[in-house]
Amino acid sequence: MNVERLWRAIKKLEIRGAPAIGIAGALGILLAVKKSPAKTGKELAAELRRAAQYLASSRPTAVNLFWALERMECIAKQNIAKPVSEIRKALVGEALLIIDEDKKSCRAMARHGAQLVKTGDTILTHCNAGGLATADYGTALGVLFEAKKQGKRIKVYADETRPLLQGARLTTWELLHERIDTTLICDNMAASLMAKGRIDKIFVGADRIARNGDAANKIGTYSLAVLAGYHGVPFYVVAPLSTFDFTIKTGAGIPIEERDAEEVRTLMGKRIAPRDVKVYNPAFDVTPNALITAIVTERGVFRRPYTISLRKLIRLRKVRTGKK
Amino acid sequence: MNVERLWRAIKKLEIRGAPAIGIAGALGILLAVKKSPAKTGKELAAELRRAAQYLASSRPTAVNLFWALERMECIAKQNIAKPVSEIRKALVGEALLIIDEDKKSCRAMARHGAQLVKTGDTILTHCNAGGLATADYGTALGVLFEAKKQGKRIKVYADETRPLLQGARLTTWELLHERIDTTLICDNMAASLMAKGRIDKIFVGADRIARNGDAANKIGTYSLAVLAGYHGVPFYVVAPLSTFDFTIKTGAGIPIEERDAEEVRTLMGKRIAPRDVKVYNPAFDVTPNALITAIVTERGVFRRPYTISLRKLIRLRKVRTGKK
Repeated sequence: MNVERLWRAIKKLEIRGAPAIGIAGALGILLAVKKSPAKTGKELAAELRRAAQYLASSRPTAVNLFWALERMECIAKQNIAKPVSEIRKALVGEALLIIDEDKKSCRAMARHGAQLVKTGDTILTHCNAGGLATADYGTALGVLFEAKKQGKRIKVYADETRPLLQGARLTTWELLHERIDTTLICDNMAASLMAKGRIDKIFVGADRIARNGDAANKIGTYSLAVLAGYHGVPFYVVAPLSTFDFTIKTGAGIPIEERDAEEVRTLMGKRIAPRDVKVYNPAFDVTPNALITAIVTERGVFRRPYTISLRKLIRLRKVRTGKK
Repeated sequence: MNVERLWRAIKKLEIRGAPAIGIAGALGILLAVKKSPAKTGKELAAELRRAAQYLASSRPTAVNLFWALERMECIAKQNIAKPVSEIRKALVGEALLIIDEDKKSCRAMARHGAQLVKTGDTILTHCNAGGLATADYGTALGVLFEAKKQGKRIKVYADETRPLLQGARLTTWELLHERIDTTLICDNMAASLMAKGRIDKIFVGADRIARNGDAANKIGTYSLAVLAGYHGVPFYVVAPLSTFDFTIKTGAGIPIEERDAEEVRTLMGKRIAPRDVKVYNPAFDVTPNALITAIVTERGVFRRPYTISLRKLIRLRKVRTGKK
């Protein structure tokens, strides 16, 4: 494994899910500095900077990547006067800390979120926000795992999540593994279930949340949020502090990755549409804060108006990272 | 080709689209009576009845099938005293009439619908409501073909339409064939386009429309209608008189076909989800009349309140078929 291979793994979604991408970024920095011939802290920091810029170019939306790379860069800068071996050690420590924090925050989010789940609830989720997207329990799925562990009887509908079918491939697998009553649907079937009153709550993850609570997540999330609002179904976003981008005022500032047309024109190698048809393939959409009932974080459940409630998180983030 | 093969072709969606299924039903009756050893009109009518009941069991939602079978049965009854060869001739005539009427109604719907399209419009459509679903021009797509023929500059987004991808496979092909500027999207991307103001109008077909204007159509249509309402995008249903079921007061009375789980768990033979995950796979959903801006028929454009405006159609249907 080298940095180029890791870049490709993120780009091609072999590693995906906002928190997992952050962790991969930190580990990518370790790969870069491990084989570095740098003799001084300054040389190592320069090398680290190049690797960070390169890794940051893999995917533009999930902010956890930039957040983790920044943390690694900070450590290098703080220790720049020390011998290279010391800096390497500090970087390993920071990467392990990022993983450990993600594990702990998964468990904390799950505990806070599970309070919102009642026995008998039928819950809809989109894409994969589980153990395969984080270092541990997952974000949205972690909430469901915890609710189940607490003995709550729940039923889950999983959107298949076109084009890359993370829901069909990953989420159903994780839910079945935890012996949760799981039903797979195509994305366009969710509204019909809501109209029949068969969905009590929706839980999804996020890839970047702006200062006002607007949340970017896998394409199709915004659609669900509008439908949830129309049908009076509570809509919850579950994400750790590392998914918030307090430098961005609203969701309009979140860059949305557009991916290759072949992801839509083919499916697992099979052609499903004319070769020459144009395709629009955004990987994410932005759900405005007004459609989000609450945001579940490792620091508790935040509700509207988010511009006020999220201030507590901004303060926490400053304390933890020494910057905004 | 025999009646059993035709039944399978309808069941497996080799023939699909409400008007095309109606035509297939009428032709299926011809297949049944062609080889019949019946000596009397009564015997032939009994045979025809069995074939009609069998064909009617292929798919439950699109009413055009039952409507066409009923027309064929009426002809047999009206001519029951005549020699078998005469009855056969009358049935052939009726089947050809059904095809001819569908062709004419396609053109008439297209003309009425094209008045709703302005040059510069970007239009979204779902599933396939084109020439591959009718005897001629299509319903919703016919409107777009006619608008283009009239020199209107339009751009079309086509929903891929999971699970069976009629949009990706058929609609894009038809639109590209007519040299219309076409972009394929996954179903869950439509909301994001509407939020950006990039959709001016939505045109879809229908499989059965109740007396109050509630319309059943391919799964995902209801979702689009709610999203259209939220974003202020006009939502048009295009369907011939044969798609109306005036015996049903509201959409709640329309039977919705649920199809095989493997349609969702696999895609063109490839497994995309765990073998043992449960699946919910309704083929249609019902859009309530309040979300439909207008219904385009061969007899003109009908608007809310449909319980009043559609009365004219009910009268026309009585005149044409001698019954409701």
